[in-house]
Amino acid sequence: MKNADLRNLAPEIEAFVHERDWDQFHSLKNLAMALSVEASELLEIFQWMSESESNQISKDPKKKEKVEEELADIAVYLTRILQKMDINLEEAIAKKLKSNAAKYPVSLSKGNSKKYDDLG
Amino acid sequence: MKNADLRNLAPEIEAFVHERDWDQFHSLKNLAMALSVEASELLEIFQWMSESESNQISKDPKKKEKVEEELADIAVYLTRILQKMDINLEEAIAKKLKSNAAKYPVSLSKGNSKKYDDLG
Amino acid sequence: MKNADLRNLAPEIEAFVHERDWDQFHSLKNLAMALSVEASELLEIFQWMSESESNQISKDPKKKEKVEEELADIAVYLTRILQKMDINLEEAIAKKLKSNAAKYPVSLSKGNSKKYDDLG
Amino acid sequence: MKNADLRNLAPEIEAFVHERDWDQFHSLKNLAMALSVEASELLEIFQWMSESESNQISKDPKKKEKVEEELADIAVYLTRILQKMDINLEEAIAKKLKSNAAKYPVSLSKGNSKKYDDLG
Repeated sequence: MKNADLRNLAPEIEAFVHERDWDQFHSLKNLAMALSVEASELLEIFQWMSESESNQISKDPKKKEKVEEELADIAVYLTRILQKMDINLEEAIAKKLKSNAAKYPVSLSKGNSKKYDDLG
Repeated sequence: MKNADLRNLAPEIEAFVHERDWDQFHSLKNLAMALSVEASELLEIFQWMSESESNQISKDPKKKEKVEEELADIAVYLTRILQKMDINLEEAIAKKLKSNAAKYPVSLSKGNSKKYDDLG
Repeated sequence: MKNADLRNLAPEIEAFVHERDWDQFHSLKNLAMALSVEASELLEIFQWMSESESNQISKDPKKKEKVEEELADIAVYLTRILQKMDINLEEAIAKKLKSNAAKYPVSLSKGNSKKYDDLG
Repeated sequence: MKNADLRNLAPEIEAFVHERDWDQFHSLKNLAMALSVEASELLEIFQWMSESESNQISKDPKKKEKVEEELADIAVYLTRILQKMDINLEEAIAKKLKSNAAKYPVSLSKGNSKKYDDLG
């Protein structure tokens, strides 16, 4: 896994927004919307591929770059929300993994993708 | 800005998936879809709030916790995609900020939210 | 309310897909994905507008046309899913309205936008 | 193709909203957001299925009903937007099909799912 510390780019993101006086548009509602729009742009890249074609996408440098751009957009809005709400993302992930482990015990969910309310 | 290094949780995420033999479901297409579904669940929290109400969300501990859970889900799928495609997210963000700075020069975009193709 | 009978265009939509031999890409999973991507493209138009600005969008003919295009795309994929699953949409809407009326009694939900599980 | 005339349910939808005094929440921005959230809930149903599993969904009555509910929600918000903007959806679809036919000539797009800017 390569570099992915959102704190490292947070000051540049904040400066970018501040210089353009864009904080007025960055309500949490709008940031959540922007994140969701970018996630759909990522999805659009894979939309008509088969699953196995999608796994080969890195072989196409143009498409790989498009994916990187959309992931960057997603990460930028994610960072903005974390900044504004003062959330500790690492703690939030650790907590969610723990809660998911309880919802999806290995014994019941191994090798199947059923939702927890359809399990056991 | 608090802890947000996706690398710190990546091994736990990978172990979680591996124990459940879920890698078979994690094509890049499916991961992009899952990320987009989680981003919509985040959006749903803010859906009927006004923008100013959304900015007060941290005052409601139950809603704040819901936001943290959805951000964690988004971060988990983001991490999975980064792992599989071996992407350097910090580099991708830095590159995207540079390209956005060219598309949105301060002189034209300061204080307005027009899309770049409607600028100037 | 103007013409909005999806059956009227269904044969043209089917012919369009058939001529291009695109039915092979139209699994229900892919159609649901395409519908969601188009819904996000609609959302993107309104993304940085205030709510009151969004209500004035028809005054801008270029933006109104963009909205019409995205609504058409959404309707096309909706129609494809209805065709493939042989669903009666009018019945489905009537049933959903009835179930929503039970979840959101007028006495509890009048003038507020709380989700049903936060009501009463 | 079964009944799918959105005009037939439009008066009931309007009455439902009016009785609850919910029109205050139905800015076009919020309606577009709600439509996108419902489209993601539809997508969530298919998320971990393979494409061929998704095509068998009607065999599972519980899942089929869930799909119908989400399609109804999508149709309700689509209808609200059409009402508010006074759009003729049939005309919009016909126009979009014509424009798509120009972007995707049969000779270039038959049997492949490339985006128009990658064609020919």
